[in-house]
Amino acid sequence: MSITIDDVREAHQRVRPHVVRTPLLQRTLPSGLELYFKPESLQPIGAFKLRGAFSLMTTLPADCPGVIAHSSGNHAQAVARAARVLGLKAVVVMPSDAPTLKRARTEADGAEVVTVGPDSDERIAKAEALAAERGLVPVPPYDHPLIMAGQGTAALEVIEDAPHPLDRFYCPVSGGGLLAGCGTVFEALSPATEVVGVEPATANDTALSLAAGERVKIPAPDTLADGLRVRTPGAGTWPITQRTVRRVALVSEDAMLDAMAWALGELRLVLEPSGAVSLAAALAEADRGGRVGVLLSGGNVEPALLARVAARAR
Amino acid sequence: MSITIDDVREAHQRVRPHVVRTPLLQRTLPSGLELYFKPESLQPIGAFKLRGAFSLMTTLPADCPGVIAHSSGNHAQAVARAARVLGLKAVVVMPSDAPTLKRARTEADGAEVVTVGPDSDERIAKAEALAAERGLVPVPPYDHPLIMAGQGTAALEVIEDAPHPLDRFYCPVSGGGLLAGCGTVFEALSPATEVVGVEPATANDTALSLAAGERVKIPAPDTLADGLRVRTPGAGTWPITQRTVRRVALVSEDAMLDAMAWALGELRLVLEPSGAVSLAAALAEADRGGRVGVLLSGGNVEPALLARVAARAR
Repeated sequence: MSITIDDVREAHQRVRPHVVRTPLLQRTLPSGLELYFKPESLQPIGAFKLRGAFSLMTTLPADCPGVIAHSSGNHAQAVARAARVLGLKAVVVMPSDAPTLKRARTEADGAEVVTVGPDSDERIAKAEALAAERGLVPVPPYDHPLIMAGQGTAALEVIEDAPHPLDRFYCPVSGGGLLAGCGTVFEALSPATEVVGVEPATANDTALSLAAGERVKIPAPDTLADGLRVRTPGAGTWPITQRTVRRVALVSEDAMLDAMAWALGELRLVLEPSGAVSLAAALAEADRGGRVGVLLSGGNVEPALLARVAARAR
Repeated sequence: MSITIDDVREAHQRVRPHVVRTPLLQRTLPSGLELYFKPESLQPIGAFKLRGAFSLMTTLPADCPGVIAHSSGNHAQAVARAARVLGLKAVVVMPSDAPTLKRARTEADGAEVVTVGPDSDERIAKAEALAAERGLVPVPPYDHPLIMAGQGTAALEVIEDAPHPLDRFYCPVSGGGLLAGCGTVFEALSPATEVVGVEPATANDTALSLAAGERVKIPAPDTLADGLRVRTPGAGTWPITQRTVRRVALVSEDAMLDAMAWALGELRLVLEPSGAVSLAAALAEADRGGRVGVLLSGGNVEPALLARVAARAR
């Protein structure tokens, strides 16, 4: 399983009519660091996941019996929304600890939600069983060339819109679809840019895997970043990550909350914890200077946490 | 004092290199209302005011002794930022009750801030005195053709980006620069769109003026919308407002806070009270259906108020 820059360009043609061309927002810190933000939180479902979902689902035949997905949240919403727009049936397997809001929004888009336990292995197994049973087309959250190519379209737009080449590009990593897609784009179009994956310190499976030179599996991680709780890099995304990503930066839960507060005050953007890790890493490395891209992956946050974070904003 | 659509188009050429092309974000409510949001809160200073400031200030000679402005907040930041970018000196007269954050950011951009009492007449007088004394070029917050034309560029982008003609366009009104600029654009390019000005119920000078057929002056209004506390429509904006704006909708303080909470949850956007009045009016009139544009004018909100509003988000 691999993708090329042409796959990403073709995905962009399919995806473009259905997603927001999110702007590239620029800020310069007093230290001179130039930040270029890609706020995918502004997508209709509040996350970049819509890109991958449309990339795959626009290739399905009109008479397809429906799609099935498993997700802790944003991918579920993306598949449900894309299915509604494209007139397909969608079934989504969600963990019992998925945020209430993400579940409610998935249902509001007309998807059938099936609930299983909190472990990611469990929902993968359930989705495979349902796909076989009902003849549904699986829309995997990351391990599929069309998904990776779709997520990579965000990086394509960053490079098109940035006034200068970027020194670094910070991107959240969970299963690795977004990171592999973006890594492919930078490798082809801007190889001098250091692509940095970002994980919560407690969900460091990609960091450990890069160090070990092979996929490492960690216990179910405890982090506020509910979108980044995958236990091991995807089998399909991993070789691409290993080839195109220089390193992984780890951020604390506290730095994540601080980054969310910073985004509220400085960017006037609501970010979810998973969407703010890249910002946290970029701010932690501010003294390295230069021009850096920051992918803000999503903004679906529970109101109670948002209120807590807002109290930290300046 | 009047402006034409060509003035707005020319302003767009001058302003475009310096402002964000804010996206047009779409949402459809269960009732079928189609909403198209123009989030000017995503401008670098968090408000549309940058458009007017650059529109005027890009026409000044390089050897100009500097500019002077009076403002309760966002216009001050816009003039300070534009001055820094264009290499000009800026002096800003602000009321003593201006939000701390807006004052701090104006100073951070290198402007000299002069503080007077809370009444808008008082700061106008002080700015005129300082302009005469130091030979500074006044950058009025709304009563200037180049300012109105600059603010109107937001409506130009809305019309360019909207997939269908709009039935209504909701726009906050204070002195009326934004509304007159946008009204001019819709009158020329989309005359069937009903342009609706929106004010807090307690700051209803434009509503009263439209009813009276002449400019009415109200006592200093008490509203959370600190950007909309002007006591009477601008002398220059008023005839344009009277010609191009069908009506003014009034919103309560509570509806304003609800709209801010809705924007946090549904759009993942931080809006200030003044920036949310248009959304509040659009939501209040949701049962009228149709396709409506909503100008979200700014997102500079004090942290304490943001935390209070976040607790209301769903």
